[in-house]
Amino acid sequence: MSDAATFAPPGGLAASSDSTTADDLSALFRPRAIAVLGASGRPGNPFARPLTYLVEHGFAGAVYPVNPGYQTLEGLTCYPSLDDLPGEVDLVLMLVSASEVVRLLPAVARAGAKAAVVFASGFAETGPDGQALQEELVRLARHHGVRLLGPNCQGLLAVHDHVVASFTAALELGVPEPGNIAYIGQSGAVGGSIFSLARERGLRIGTWASTGNQADLGATEIANFLVEDPRIQVLTMYLESPVPGAEFDRLTARAAELGKTILVLRSALSGSGARAATSHTGAIIGDDAAFTAMCRERGVVQADDVEDFIATAHALSVLPRSGGHRLGIITTSGGAGSLAADQAEARGMTVDDLTEPVQRRLARVVPDFGAVTNPVDVTAQMFKANETDGFIAVCDELLADPTVDSVLVVLTMVTGDLATSMAHGLCGLWARATKPVVVVWLAARQQTAEAREILRANGMPVYDSPRMGVGVLHALATSVPMPSQPLGRQSDLGVGDVLSGLRGGVITEHEGAEVLTALGIDRPRERLVSSVNQAADAARALGGPLVMKIQSPEVVHKTERGGVRLGVGVGEAATVYSDLVDRFTAEGTTEVLVQEQVAEGPELLVGITNTEPGFPPLLTVGMGGVTTELYQDTTTRLAPVDARAAKQMLLELKAAPLLTGFRGREGHDLDAAAEAIATLSRLAVLVGDRLAELEVNPLRLVDAGKRAIALDFLLRLGPLEETTA
Amino acid sequence: MSDAATFAPPGGLAASSDSTTADDLSALFRPRAIAVLGASGRPGNPFARPLTYLVEHGFAGAVYPVNPGYQTLEGLTCYPSLDDLPGEVDLVLMLVSASEVVRLLPAVARAGAKAAVVFASGFAETGPDGQALQEELVRLARHHGVRLLGPNCQGLLAVHDHVVASFTAALELGVPEPGNIAYIGQSGAVGGSIFSLARERGLRIGTWASTGNQADLGATEIANFLVEDPRIQVLTMYLESPVPGAEFDRLTARAAELGKTILVLRSALSGSGARAATSHTGAIIGDDAAFTAMCRERGVVQADDVEDFIATAHALSVLPRSGGHRLGIITTSGGAGSLAADQAEARGMTVDDLTEPVQRRLARVVPDFGAVTNPVDVTAQMFKANETDGFIAVCDELLADPTVDSVLVVLTMVTGDLATSMAHGLCGLWARATKPVVVVWLAARQQTAEAREILRANGMPVYDSPRMGVGVLHALATSVPMPSQPLGRQSDLGVGDVLSGLRGGVITEHEGAEVLTALGIDRPRERLVSSVNQAADAARALGGPLVMKIQSPEVVHKTERGGVRLGVGVGEAATVYSDLVDRFTAEGTTEVLVQEQVAEGPELLVGITNTEPGFPPLLTVGMGGVTTELYQDTTTRLAPVDARAAKQMLLELKAAPLLTGFRGREGHDLDAAAEAIATLSRLAVLVGDRLAELEVNPLRLVDAGKRAIALDFLLRLGPLEETTA
Repeated sequence: MSDAATFAPPGGLAASSDSTTADDLSALFRPRAIAVLGASGRPGNPFARPLTYLVEHGFAGAVYPVNPGYQTLEGLTCYPSLDDLPGEVDLVLMLVSASEVVRLLPAVARAGAKAAVVFASGFAETGPDGQALQEELVRLARHHGVRLLGPNCQGLLAVHDHVVASFTAALELGVPEPGNIAYIGQSGAVGGSIFSLARERGLRIGTWASTGNQADLGATEIANFLVEDPRIQVLTMYLESPVPGAEFDRLTARAAELGKTILVLRSALSGSGARAATSHTGAIIGDDAAFTAMCRERGVVQADDVEDFIATAHALSVLPRSGGHRLGIITTSGGAGSLAADQAEARGMTVDDLTEPVQRRLARVVPDFGAVTNPVDVTAQMFKANETDGFIAVCDELLADPTVDSVLVVLTMVTGDLATSMAHGLCGLWARATKPVVVVWLAARQQTAEAREILRANGMPVYDSPRMGVGVLHALATSVPMPSQPLGRQSDLGVGDVLSGLRGGVITEHEGAEVLTALGIDRPRERLVSSVNQAADAARALGGPLVMKIQSPEVVHKTERGGVRLGVGVGEAATVYSDLVDRFTAEGTTEVLVQEQVAEGPELLVGITNTEPGFPPLLTVGMGGVTTELYQDTTTRLAPVDARAAKQMLLELKAAPLLTGFRGREGHDLDAAAEAIATLSRLAVLVGDRLAELEVNPLRLVDAGKRAIALDFLLRLGPLEETTA
Repeated sequence: MSDAATFAPPGGLAASSDSTTADDLSALFRPRAIAVLGASGRPGNPFARPLTYLVEHGFAGAVYPVNPGYQTLEGLTCYPSLDDLPGEVDLVLMLVSASEVVRLLPAVARAGAKAAVVFASGFAETGPDGQALQEELVRLARHHGVRLLGPNCQGLLAVHDHVVASFTAALELGVPEPGNIAYIGQSGAVGGSIFSLARERGLRIGTWASTGNQADLGATEIANFLVEDPRIQVLTMYLESPVPGAEFDRLTARAAELGKTILVLRSALSGSGARAATSHTGAIIGDDAAFTAMCRERGVVQADDVEDFIATAHALSVLPRSGGHRLGIITTSGGAGSLAADQAEARGMTVDDLTEPVQRRLARVVPDFGAVTNPVDVTAQMFKANETDGFIAVCDELLADPTVDSVLVVLTMVTGDLATSMAHGLCGLWARATKPVVVVWLAARQQTAEAREILRANGMPVYDSPRMGVGVLHALATSVPMPSQPLGRQSDLGVGDVLSGLRGGVITEHEGAEVLTALGIDRPRERLVSSVNQAADAARALGGPLVMKIQSPEVVHKTERGGVRLGVGVGEAATVYSDLVDRFTAEGTTEVLVQEQVAEGPELLVGITNTEPGFPPLLTVGMGGVTTELYQDTTTRLAPVDARAAKQMLLELKAAPLLTGFRGREGHDLDAAAEAIATLSRLAVLVGDRLAELEVNPLRLVDAGKRAIALDFLLRLGPLEETTA
């Protein structure tokens, strides 16, 4: 019997029906008894493998082969049908064709199973007929209360519990020792490849799942279950399709809370179609900007490539997280140290001089021709006595330096017996180090075979290149979630009434002005006019120069369409009014906004979009004007942010020197702008699911930044009835 | 006897004394006889290794150990001193201490040697005393006509000729089969590591050299010799210090001419100090921009990392170059294909649909659930019959598609016998393919061991990740030199007299105006004035609005220092003149340039610098204004360029849409600007070594680009006596 019945995650949340916690998938990952439907006795048939694996790898619960063609299989009684089983099962492995899967699902439920793995292809991936069959399958599963993995998947492994429910060829070499890594991905082929490569590199995977078509269970829902497993520390996910936002939000927040790390590799990122966007913001940010922002803020590590994914998973599974990006490098070759330093700086990590006391202590042990700065170059002289204690002592010194967050050891031709001694020394170092130590060893395996076997037996990684070594240290540093922001209570900001009165669609600048005013965001003095006489009156009251803008929900890009006039004199206002209204007769509007023209100053773009379902709104900040779009110079965060974070966003722009002072230009105070940005981000959260886009473009800094004035405003809302509030 | 005496490179250039060809280094790389000075008989002593290696690896010429402590070594007669040798040698391996090296160099020459390898450390790398010793060594070597490799180096291997003159531990496993790759690098440790890793990955290195302190011979000079060797096709260089420009120029031109490829890995790139620069251009481009431009134009591949370097060297040594960046992908898994496509697009390669006929033919063989677009996904179904002929046929189809420049094969869990069959099929494919085919195999070595051994025996690479596979295909595409530009004769452009009259230092805008006018480059109408009355007269003659600028070689950044006034009315000119002259009393100038203020239009920065000795001047083009510096949005080429290339440079700017039309802005003709840029680039070449910096900033486009007007001009020259012309 597995320990599934007694397993309870921290706080016992997994079993709760609270909607903020994951469904209990124990039947799938920790079944007490398993039926193998369609088990084959033909050697070489992939469908023979799961039963063989289950028996060979010591699954402790009952296993029932089901196949009318056999009396016994693998020494077990074989049953003619699911209805003939001698006891209840939690899980059925369905090794039958697509149509049989659908036909037999009721029998799965009758056998007591709460979960089934559907291996067969022939569903949605084949076209409309398959899609219909898949929908029928899901309908039946929901009806009968059976959770499905697949179809068109390669199953799962829960190595700690000896559940080997897959036919992946990656298992040809047997099941390795379990560890604290979980892998979840759609493609069985990619999942098998990663498993195969990961095992070879010494990673220890505890749980592995191929989710296939994800007709029922998706990767994120499974991750939400596995994150609660105390035996799992690193959740690695290979994603081919967008994740459900709310589930990913819960997953990443929970992982941060539990101090676990999520590592993601995505495919199918390129060639995505252009997205129709009303706002400037929408045209600038990518399709998955909210996903990326969430990863960054929650410490989710994004890998670039399969190799990177495996290397990073290994490091995350055995090394402590790093407190920062300050790297100490120790090497047997100045050249190799320099290559590593280049890689570090290219990643935005720093390789600074060590503290004085550390340099002094190093000078006592490092040979004369070496370097005690950073990278520390011990030279080959260090190994004259054919021992590595001195080298390891140098590593300890580096780790003790308070200005070093992590240590990279770059070995060149340390080979043979010296290599073996080095491996033992490194294992000792790892055992006592509280900061990450990563080893790059630039020598052939054949010349370091014994050393590498020692490291492998201890579960420790060795990397083949400075790039990879630096990459994993960078990943360890970015795997620390950003601190949550103290935002105070999300009250209605005093604009609840205003908001609830707004219709759906595009809200014009003037309609939105009331919202901004209620929020305390600075606006130009202005009047809405709808006749020549009103225009002339407004102009006299406001004084010139003036800005005049057509107002209509049909005219979103006012400037591009010639609906904005700048520098209008008081005496011209009436004529300009007529011109504007004439130009937009097709839109049937007579409304024109007459505003004072405010002083010159740098302009910002502040946009908030809600394009990825389930994700919080995404705040984007950039400089106003055409260059922001040309150079993609924006920063993004999940809304809401506080003023401190908003200011930080401004400072992260490449164009920040234009705000803070550059080549003789005056610097600007950023507090007023930051306050306005923070307030807008809270407004977006308050609007909630109704929000499509919200944009202030430009927000102009005047009086050296003491004031930030919203010169234009765009709000696009969903219809009122969609509001969830 | 080796074939050194009879070896002659194509055209017999290596032996020529023409200054445009390389020195003959045959004594070093193809010696007929070698003395091993200080050969040791103590096992375990690294200095015992070179003699052992030479004898073991079948060096055909005479080998003379020299050590008064032995009668024989390795079965050879050992001589007490170099003066006791029974015959002349070409090369002496000096395994003695630094001071002994200097003492014995005359004896090296007396022994007939034209080259020596100095292994000892204790020279420039240790400080001023060592530096002095090294200088003495070089003086002696020059005096005696002995070329030196080292000191502080690990020697060389010339595998084709059985010259193993190194003690690198990388040779512990013996000397591998020779091939068409040469490696040259300073650091012996990095060189040993690369040799060790390269051999393990199946690369075949023909020549290897560690240049150490490069007191005499540097990596580039050696490469200039080896590029003529018909047995070498790929020259790989690991560089820790800047290369001599003229030698690198000759090397890259010669490699392009011979159809050979140079691959470079550099270290010590980061943390370089800021460079003082007079011009805007100097502040924008990096320290090694000319090196980078030369690499790009000559098809020199730059690697990022050790792993990348080795992987790319392998591909370059066995695969044809690619004609372009259009990639065909074939995979056993849609997911893996998608990962590869993402990598390709991130690199700027394209993965487009295949041509119709190819898709039709593929549809006959690819299973239903697969894809015949690109990536082509054959699915695991393709291997049902346990054979790979169908798969290889699909690869042939892709190669035959005229829209495909290179093919990436991404295999997932193809293992065991199927893998072996695949390996045979791939070797056949490589034998007949005229486009590059690269294989990424995502399965453990243990599950594909026989297959990998077959590929290795055939010298073919297999990569572990889509990133690396795409990376080497990208390198193959960039290894094709850019076509040379038809520039016509570099006449003096009609400005020889003007130039020769210019003093050294900063030439003011007005002084330079004569040059621009002579070149036919458009300038504003202008007058130089040096009194209030002249200023008033000039203003009346030119008509307002005007631009007025102080003129002094002491005032380089006129605008930043308040020396430029825009929009001056005719009546204000006298007052502005007085203001300007008063402001710059310290500089003692009374000269002010009065110009018509030309119409608004987009502005370009055109800068040419001469900061890397021996390299051609470097032309930099960007948009004028502050954003160019903030976003580093410039393109660079070696001067001269023709107008077509100049136009291409403008189109490569990220900001190019501002020139060609963007969001409702008008587009501009670029021909006038391109002509001006090309002319300036020819001027820079004409000025030659005297040129420090030349900048037109801004070059303004007016009349929709029909005119390009140089609104400012900076020329900084070296003193007249430095001119080589």
